[in-house]
Amino acid sequence: MAVGLSYAVSKLQMLSTSDHASVVSMNLFVALLCACIVVGHLLEENRWVNESITALVIGVCTGVVILLVSGGKSSHLLVFSEDLFFIYMLPPIIFNAGFQVKKKQFFVNFITIVMFGAIGTLVSCSIIALGVTQFFKKMDIGSLDIGDYLAIGAIFAATDSVCTLQVLNQDETPLLYSLVFGEGVVNDATSVVLFNAIQSFDLTNIDPRIALHFIGNFLYLFVASTLLGVITGLLSAYIIKKLYFGRHSTDREVALMMLMAYLSYMLAELFYLSGILTVFFCGIVMSHYTWHNVTESSRVTTKHAFATLSFVAEIFIFLYVGMDALDIEKWRFVSDSPGTSVAVSSILLALIMVARAAFVFPLSFLSNLAKKNSHEKISIRQQVIIWWAGLMRGAVSIALAYNQFTRSGHTQLRANAIMITSTITVVLFSTVVFGLLTKPLIRFLIPNPKHTTSMTLSDPSTPKSATMPLLGSAQDSETDLVGHDIPRPGSIRALLATPTHTVHRYWRKFDDAFMRPVFGGRGFVPFVPGSPTERGEPQWQ
Amino acid sequence: MAVGLSYAVSKLQMLSTSDHASVVSMNLFVALLCACIVVGHLLEENRWVNESITALVIGVCTGVVILLVSGGKSSHLLVFSEDLFFIYMLPPIIFNAGFQVKKKQFFVNFITIVMFGAIGTLVSCSIIALGVTQFFKKMDIGSLDIGDYLAIGAIFAATDSVCTLQVLNQDETPLLYSLVFGEGVVNDATSVVLFNAIQSFDLTNIDPRIALHFIGNFLYLFVASTLLGVITGLLSAYIIKKLYFGRHSTDREVALMMLMAYLSYMLAELFYLSGILTVFFCGIVMSHYTWHNVTESSRVTTKHAFATLSFVAEIFIFLYVGMDALDIEKWRFVSDSPGTSVAVSSILLALIMVARAAFVFPLSFLSNLAKKNSHEKISIRQQVIIWWAGLMRGAVSIALAYNQFTRSGHTQLRANAIMITSTITVVLFSTVVFGLLTKPLIRFLIPNPKHTTSMTLSDPSTPKSATMPLLGSAQDSETDLVGHDIPRPGSIRALLATPTHTVHRYWRKFDDAFMRPVFGGRGFVPFVPGSPTERGEPQWQ
Repeated sequence: MAVGLSYAVSKLQMLSTSDHASVVSMNLFVALLCACIVVGHLLEENRWVNESITALVIGVCTGVVILLVSGGKSSHLLVFSEDLFFIYMLPPIIFNAGFQVKKKQFFVNFITIVMFGAIGTLVSCSIIALGVTQFFKKMDIGSLDIGDYLAIGAIFAATDSVCTLQVLNQDETPLLYSLVFGEGVVNDATSVVLFNAIQSFDLTNIDPRIALHFIGNFLYLFVASTLLGVITGLLSAYIIKKLYFGRHSTDREVALMMLMAYLSYMLAELFYLSGILTVFFCGIVMSHYTWHNVTESSRVTTKHAFATLSFVAEIFIFLYVGMDALDIEKWRFVSDSPGTSVAVSSILLALIMVARAAFVFPLSFLSNLAKKNSHEKISIRQQVIIWWAGLMRGAVSIALAYNQFTRSGHTQLRANAIMITSTITVVLFSTVVFGLLTKPLIRFLIPNPKHTTSMTLSDPSTPKSATMPLLGSAQDSETDLVGHDIPRPGSIRALLATPTHTVHRYWRKFDDAFMRPVFGGRGFVPFVPGSPTERGEPQWQ
Repeated sequence: MAVGLSYAVSKLQMLSTSDHASVVSMNLFVALLCACIVVGHLLEENRWVNESITALVIGVCTGVVILLVSGGKSSHLLVFSEDLFFIYMLPPIIFNAGFQVKKKQFFVNFITIVMFGAIGTLVSCSIIALGVTQFFKKMDIGSLDIGDYLAIGAIFAATDSVCTLQVLNQDETPLLYSLVFGEGVVNDATSVVLFNAIQSFDLTNIDPRIALHFIGNFLYLFVASTLLGVITGLLSAYIIKKLYFGRHSTDREVALMMLMAYLSYMLAELFYLSGILTVFFCGIVMSHYTWHNVTESSRVTTKHAFATLSFVAEIFIFLYVGMDALDIEKWRFVSDSPGTSVAVSSILLALIMVARAAFVFPLSFLSNLAKKNSHEKISIRQQVIIWWAGLMRGAVSIALAYNQFTRSGHTQLRANAIMITSTITVVLFSTVVFGLLTKPLIRFLIPNPKHTTSMTLSDPSTPKSATMPLLGSAQDSETDLVGHDIPRPGSIRALLATPTHTVHRYWRKFDDAFMRPVFGGRGFVPFVPGSPTERGEPQWQ
């Protein structure tokens, strides 16, 4: 066997010390990840802190230590790589979100989510772009053209759904979770079009044809990405059902599910679609069909393995952002005028808050107009939370800022350096300060979340995923695993009262008649068609 | 959220087409991995083929297709990267092997395994190096110096334990599996020293001091690597036991186990030790202590997630080697003299077979001399299988050959080109032809493996890992999970007959008194000390 390592060792000794340096970095990074998990666990009872903030703080502290040890030369261990983030870290997080999302909640609020994600992002981007144009022109910043201003709008319109996932709790506040997170997923599709438009269209004369082109492009992207995810998910269900892998190997099933999920993301990248939308819908389909075709141990394994991968990727991102924040080179140009930098960051933070308020409250009002029952409407307290939970900016903003402002001559230009450092400041501040305040804010506004957010049936039989020993919920278990044939008076009443009931029934019939025989899945058991037993499945509104 | 992908998309459109080419490659690669899993499943009943061969053949076929499509320019999708192999693919495979290995089997045969791994590799390397020196000097190959000949010895002394894992079955032939696989792990430590010695020592005058230095170096490497693995494993057990992660989150436990396992490998790299030995022993310790401190669902998840990662990594390697084999550049220099290439490959294959025979049979004879009971001895049929199962060469040989023969002027030199292509030929031939013949050979020599290999207690309560729905064996379950308090007459007799019994008892007492209170684990239940209930745990011989 491995004369193998001899290769590594000889290479280390002969060629360079940089190889060994990268081994040192990886060691430190993995050790820090372990530390984050342990510290995060110890602080879990704390009402302020969450895992993201822990990782961010540990990252910044490590950055300080490295800065001191290296004598002020460098503070980060790995070079920030957008590929690492978009190709390896983001897919497991979004896939897991789709895999564990409460499907009913998501589809009941589908239209609201799309409105928030698409129109909201546009509004947010426009307001931020307009705001910076007004403010920055009066300040001594440097040369920024209209493309840069629009790009700043796009950069700071990108909400950080990774952080949202940590702050909001799917079981405590299902409506808010599905709205804010769903918005984040749709946000991506909008943003791809937006950024492309800013970089490719002629920005001097905007006419209706471009707007039409823009809308068409968005619709294509949204539909195509969703379809790709659904098709890949169904394909995995079909393969596993037909070959009946369970007969032989749990490992094969798990491997196939992981690979197909990743394949869906990469296929979307291949066709210039939104990989995030694709992998999200692939996760939904896989949890509805594929997951029921595999063995018991495959189910436990996939559920926890996907969650673990997502968990590690999240910590990795925040640890990384924390460490990268202190990179000395970026701060060099800013150090002679700290006032300007603080002013720019403050303006950006204020604009983010205003821009988000400018679409959350009006769109919530519109959404409420369409609802008849008062308990379905988004209350003003919930609107405040939706507004607040989307204020955090994360690694996506940083990656975009790097892309826009380091292309032409690194951070040597004053304006570019200021924008990069301001982005980092905004990300750190919003994640830590806004993040710290979110949990107390939710507790303050909604003292007992279970009852106030009961827009849809909050199923008492749904336990928290983390505390369940085996096959807990999170896995859409309210339908699939526990008592789908036990009538629940409360649920029935709630269901009968909603107009989505009809859509739900048609979808159920379609699923039973055509989808389940081909793709498997145990979502529905058709005891008495149209009976009260139909609960908790995707309702296409 | 992710204006993210916009970055990727804009980058794709602006900067280069090479980025999109890499997306295409990744898509194809992931799709091929899926295809390998499906085809491997369909062919599982086949008595000749195994998963490695399937992946290798699919890889070669894909290579042919790419070669035709690209008009003879290129046949591989990714550039062969030793880092990818040694840093990402190998650790999960070896860790999983340690995690799932039957500990009793391994430790009962510890001395034999070390003999095979250390002395065997030295003998093998010497014979191959001597052989090629004699043969190649007479042939028209080009300039190779004594360093090259010795390196060839080291390259082809490296057995491919990944392939061994696929060909031999731990449950059917536990003794053979532990011997051949254990040999492979020890082989690594020997090889690190060997390769370093070849590259750093003055090869013109070999005196006893160098030999002594060599032996000391080997002992240090072996002991230090093992200790590092054990310490990391114990640390993970201690952390999880003290913090009792199960109270809150399965995901945290699984993440911590994965990260600590990987950390042990990277730490070994950091200290220039043998990462393979370290991660192997880390796996053993984790399965003995850590695994029993976590929740039920964590156990199922880790067991299958590690196995799945290992499974995917194995397929990846073989798929890759198959694809890389057809790289046109390497074959250009050889195409004008195909006879020489065939001759070189044949000589190498013959030398590999002779060199392995030269240590397997004498060392087995020595090992048998030390054993008193006839059923403990390695029969001549088993010796033939040990000899045969170690003949396969794999990705490790290829990585080493690249390191040795592409350093000075790529494959432009005739001798280097011939050595690279010959290595590929040997790897393909040995994996496919020898691999195809292994299953039938074992069936022919040992018609009913369960009974003929019963050197140690073959526990009938141990099911195959893959077919168990939940918490199957592979996880050393003979002691930990099922009936450790049920006396089994056959087992008792076998145990009492062995001289390792005493060592076993002392280890058990030590484990009960000092280790388990600190690190957890449920390996032993001390009902009656020294009673027949002590079964199936590590016996330090």
